[in-house]
Amino acid sequence: MKNTNIRISLPAVCFVWQIAMIVLFGVFIRYDEESDVRKWIEFKVSHNITSDIENDFYFRYPSFQDVHVMIFVGFGFLMTFLKRYSFGGVGFNFLIASFGVQWALLMQGWFHALDPDTGKISIGVESLINADFCVASSLIAYGALLGKVSPVQLMVVTLFGVTLFAVEEYIILSLLHCRDAGGSMVIHAFGGYYGLAISWVLYRPNLNQSKRLSGSTYHSDVFAMIGTLFLWMFWPSFNSAITDHGSGQHRAAINTYIALASSVLTTVAISSMSDKRGKLDMVHIQNATLAGGVAMGTAAEFMITPYGSLIVGFCCGIISTFGYLFVTPMMEKYLKLQDTCGIHNLHAVPGMLGGFIGAIVAAAATEEVYGREGLIETFDFEGDFASRTVLTQGGFQAAGTCVSIAFGVVGGVVVGLILRLPIWGDPSDDNCYDDEAYWEVRGLFYH
Amino acid sequence: MKNTNIRISLPAVCFVWQIAMIVLFGVFIRYDEESDVRKWIEFKVSHNITSDIENDFYFRYPSFQDVHVMIFVGFGFLMTFLKRYSFGGVGFNFLIASFGVQWALLMQGWFHALDPDTGKISIGVESLINADFCVASSLIAYGALLGKVSPVQLMVVTLFGVTLFAVEEYIILSLLHCRDAGGSMVIHAFGGYYGLAISWVLYRPNLNQSKRLSGSTYHSDVFAMIGTLFLWMFWPSFNSAITDHGSGQHRAAINTYIALASSVLTTVAISSMSDKRGKLDMVHIQNATLAGGVAMGTAAEFMITPYGSLIVGFCCGIISTFGYLFVTPMMEKYLKLQDTCGIHNLHAVPGMLGGFIGAIVAAAATEEVYGREGLIETFDFEGDFASRTVLTQGGFQAAGTCVSIAFGVVGGVVVGLILRLPIWGDPSDDNCYDDEAYWEVRGLFYH
Amino acid sequence: MKNTNIRISLPAVCFVWQIAMIVLFGVFIRYDEESDVRKWIEFKVSHNITSDIENDFYFRYPSFQDVHVMIFVGFGFLMTFLKRYSFGGVGFNFLIASFGVQWALLMQGWFHALDPDTGKISIGVESLINADFCVASSLIAYGALLGKVSPVQLMVVTLFGVTLFAVEEYIILSLLHCRDAGGSMVIHAFGGYYGLAISWVLYRPNLNQSKRLSGSTYHSDVFAMIGTLFLWMFWPSFNSAITDHGSGQHRAAINTYIALASSVLTTVAISSMSDKRGKLDMVHIQNATLAGGVAMGTAAEFMITPYGSLIVGFCCGIISTFGYLFVTPMMEKYLKLQDTCGIHNLHAVPGMLGGFIGAIVAAAATEEVYGREGLIETFDFEGDFASRTVLTQGGFQAAGTCVSIAFGVVGGVVVGLILRLPIWGDPSDDNCYDDEAYWEVRGLFYH
Repeated sequence: MKNTNIRISLPAVCFVWQIAMIVLFGVFIRYDEESDVRKWIEFKVSHNITSDIENDFYFRYPSFQDVHVMIFVGFGFLMTFLKRYSFGGVGFNFLIASFGVQWALLMQGWFHALDPDTGKISIGVESLINADFCVASSLIAYGALLGKVSPVQLMVVTLFGVTLFAVEEYIILSLLHCRDAGGSMVIHAFGGYYGLAISWVLYRPNLNQSKRLSGSTYHSDVFAMIGTLFLWMFWPSFNSAITDHGSGQHRAAINTYIALASSVLTTVAISSMSDKRGKLDMVHIQNATLAGGVAMGTAAEFMITPYGSLIVGFCCGIISTFGYLFVTPMMEKYLKLQDTCGIHNLHAVPGMLGGFIGAIVAAAATEEVYGREGLIETFDFEGDFASRTVLTQGGFQAAGTCVSIAFGVVGGVVVGLILRLPIWGDPSDDNCYDDEAYWEVRGLFYH
Repeated sequence: MKNTNIRISLPAVCFVWQIAMIVLFGVFIRYDEESDVRKWIEFKVSHNITSDIENDFYFRYPSFQDVHVMIFVGFGFLMTFLKRYSFGGVGFNFLIASFGVQWALLMQGWFHALDPDTGKISIGVESLINADFCVASSLIAYGALLGKVSPVQLMVVTLFGVTLFAVEEYIILSLLHCRDAGGSMVIHAFGGYYGLAISWVLYRPNLNQSKRLSGSTYHSDVFAMIGTLFLWMFWPSFNSAITDHGSGQHRAAINTYIALASSVLTTVAISSMSDKRGKLDMVHIQNATLAGGVAMGTAAEFMITPYGSLIVGFCCGIISTFGYLFVTPMMEKYLKLQDTCGIHNLHAVPGMLGGFIGAIVAAAATEEVYGREGLIETFDFEGDFASRTVLTQGGFQAAGTCVSIAFGVVGGVVVGLILRLPIWGDPSDDNCYDDEAYWEVRGLFYH
Repeated sequence: MKNTNIRISLPAVCFVWQIAMIVLFGVFIRYDEESDVRKWIEFKVSHNITSDIENDFYFRYPSFQDVHVMIFVGFGFLMTFLKRYSFGGVGFNFLIASFGVQWALLMQGWFHALDPDTGKISIGVESLINADFCVASSLIAYGALLGKVSPVQLMVVTLFGVTLFAVEEYIILSLLHCRDAGGSMVIHAFGGYYGLAISWVLYRPNLNQSKRLSGSTYHSDVFAMIGTLFLWMFWPSFNSAITDHGSGQHRAAINTYIALASSVLTTVAISSMSDKRGKLDMVHIQNATLAGGVAMGTAAEFMITPYGSLIVGFCCGIISTFGYLFVTPMMEKYLKLQDTCGIHNLHAVPGMLGGFIGAIVAAAATEEVYGREGLIETFDFEGDFASRTVLTQGGFQAAGTCVSIAFGVVGGVVVGLILRLPIWGDPSDDNCYDDEAYWEVRGLFYH
């Protein structure tokens, strides 16, 4: 039996990192011109704005709150499905997301919002959305590790995950000048492969010792549906939260809505076909129904057309469900890779596909469909990139997808090796998937 | 024991219908001028719009997301109350709503948004709200059938339900020129009577064989409260989502908020009075508290006044609770009509009343209260209807209510007869209300 | 065994009070100029407004709906944690909030929105938010009383709670001219001490007779996390809902988001440190993580800076968790004060601290940071208060905090004495924390 006592390590990590956040926020972070009372008054005058409704807050705050619900309730409750690890699912998700958003505000700020004159980072509502997005990749990684790691390890996963995210995001969005509003590449493909690589390094050959706890029970499956539905419903907000004002946000929401609806039907179809009496499996319904949203993360803001969105959702529902049926068991058997929530099928593969779909849709863009101004607006063909063609853009989008996967795999292996150090208080094999390890559990009720 | 094997029929229906959707979307559906990047840029120029905040997205998206939550979490979790049918409640709701919204975009598009020149349907955020509204009527019908039908039957219920909805909506809103922003008539009265008529045709004389499963248990009642509360909280968004910009949305939200608050108190009062020790019944709290929202579906956008809204909520809370106490048992006994969720008391009757309340409030409108412009704006007295009086409008509102009921009853009987064909894999009497029929259930825990 | 039969008293109270509401709404309450169709058309002309998007509805409705979710799902589900009182937690919360918002619209209307010429109260979306805020203080008080009172008593608590709230709010916001957008003082400190004082007067020396029911169980703890998370996620909306348009709402949301993230980490740290094996306690995670939001209720709209917000969250997470560990047990032992949900640690103390933090931040405001116009806008230094300095403002903020506590303590003692009358149907000591007293419970399942 390993020692899961984290009485010193967990508080130490929490305090040290939180104090570091306070110091760094004090040195670096300030309100931007739309959230600072003096600057906003000046900004309105200098930009000839007559109404407060033009503040970015009113364009993005409703979407931000939807994204916020996805991060904390969506991801959190999706991970309550294990019969005896609901506290860990929703509780550790809460912990690492809360830490991660702070670190993300700093990391993303340094790369994207640092004023070279003052050395300060300016934050506004879009920064909060981006911080939530950033932390999503670490929460995805947690999905592969659910039940097998200690909260201290999860803090490390998040610290490195957010750091890697900020770097790959900078490369993909700024250097390669890709568009990735809903993060098929930067969030899902990266987060998925990051988690898989960590889990591969942390392979536990005798995990079957805790097999009695590795499944769901009736009530925990209903709890998990809360997570599924809030993710599913708010995914249009996720993919439209930081797109262009006006038609950009509008179109991204419509495309995502349509793709998700389509995913549900093909998920149900494949799930039913795979059982000899046609019975549905909650694992599929809870997860593969979301694949359409993941795969639309890049293309949602493009003119992919409504039927294009339907096709994306159609295919990804099928691919994702097949993943749960065949790929996850095979990965465990042959690749020695244990993926508790099946993030391979919900995030890694649909995210990668989403990146390539985005590349194709970008390459196929025409001035006839977008209009000249529309092309410039949609793909930001301005400044250094004013002369880029849509074909080149498509190539860079594909390259960006590969960058995100590479960062995920390499970063995950390195972080996995760090997590093998015997200092993190992780559970022994027969102690996995059990809240008793890290929580005071009242009532001795197993079912 | 009937054969509930749906391994062929369910995937077949899902695939055929989803592929049909892709083809029809490809032929018909396009972005509208506010979600298409080229058209929106041109629209801003041609309409002299200087800010993207004027895009309809920013008027309606927050309400849309609230409505979306009502459809998937609200209706879904409200139907988890049965002790052993929570998967079917929330899961089949998810399936048929996802299919229904796609079919609704087409059906409603053909009737309301077809460009005669191009033969294309234009969609935007208001179309998404209307699709959610449309599918709500089929979800209401599901409430009467909960636990007694197969998912294949539910797909049929939804296919016809959405189709009938689009026709009756066209007649009521376009031909009769009624106002029905929150759908007391077109959604609730129609959906309620549609479900009741189907259930009446599908009467099961020996349903008491599955009586041990036909009730709730402690935890499933708490799950159902999630559905109740999200419906209750977001109903002001439901009734205001597609009303006029400005004071119309504002007023509809206020009226609905007030009516719902009033319903809660009278529901509690009647529920307590009906028990010999004054104990409350969760069935009433979960359902009748919502009656005020249903009944305000037509009148919420009118100048019904705050105390008028209170009175509507007051009465409907009482009527609905009495329905659960007396009418539902009597309908089963004498009418041979089994209504699992009591949609008669929550949707059919309050919806019908809401239609007539709307008629009365419309007929009582005066230029003094609304102002001349306000009357025109509120009742759309423009074009062919420029000379209509409020009294005539009231008459048409009442006529519209009757049309919605007629469509529900007749359509429901026809669909019910179709569902009696022995090809749909529906459960035998002793297999009703049991997730085992259509779901892989882990853990054999009954309580 | 006391008589818990409320078959006459509960319906009587509900009917009498609801009918009183209808009469009073009829006499007093009207739509304001932004929700009345005629007035809004005139308002647009007279104020030279060209777009409906300038209607206050679009500034505040998304925040309103988030607050609404906090009141009904947040508070409601947070109180489902007891193993056998989940119906009472979420159900009575529903009842008293629904009654309270109606009474709040009247009470707050008389004090703040009464037109002296017409004698009418005008309501709009901001009134709905304020009504939700007002009722929050009574729901906080319910937290101290959970499981020990009858629903009739709770109606009395709410009637007086809303009344006292309206008076103290008038004194603090209007007479003392304090700023308190998120209600650290007027909502949390008042509501906390109000509940504690009532609970102190209602002390039950033999409450240990129902000890078997006074804790949580595995599933009820997961249900309670729904409440925690919706409160936590939407707290930025709570603190920004009624702040100034533009940068005011923007900044309040950012500050609250940051403070809450920080609270989570220190709560986890202290919770882990307090257990000999470092295990986390759900009581702390469910409650103390929210302390940062409470404590930012006054200062969130000020220029407290992002790192200032982090520090507030940091300290309040620690203080609140220590409260659960040491203060609540000691209060029961030495002060004879039973506080079921520990509102002392989540609302009373963080609310009081929030009041004083607001005072300090106000006193430290400078023209350099806020700008001249910004100072006037933020602190409303207009009219009678045009010459007030920030230092004076700080003093008044501190005075306001004391007023709120005084109202809570004195009001609570008086209401507690009223509740000791033997006419309210409250449960006997061995009947506390048991839904059987007031609910029809199906399934005899204790776990």
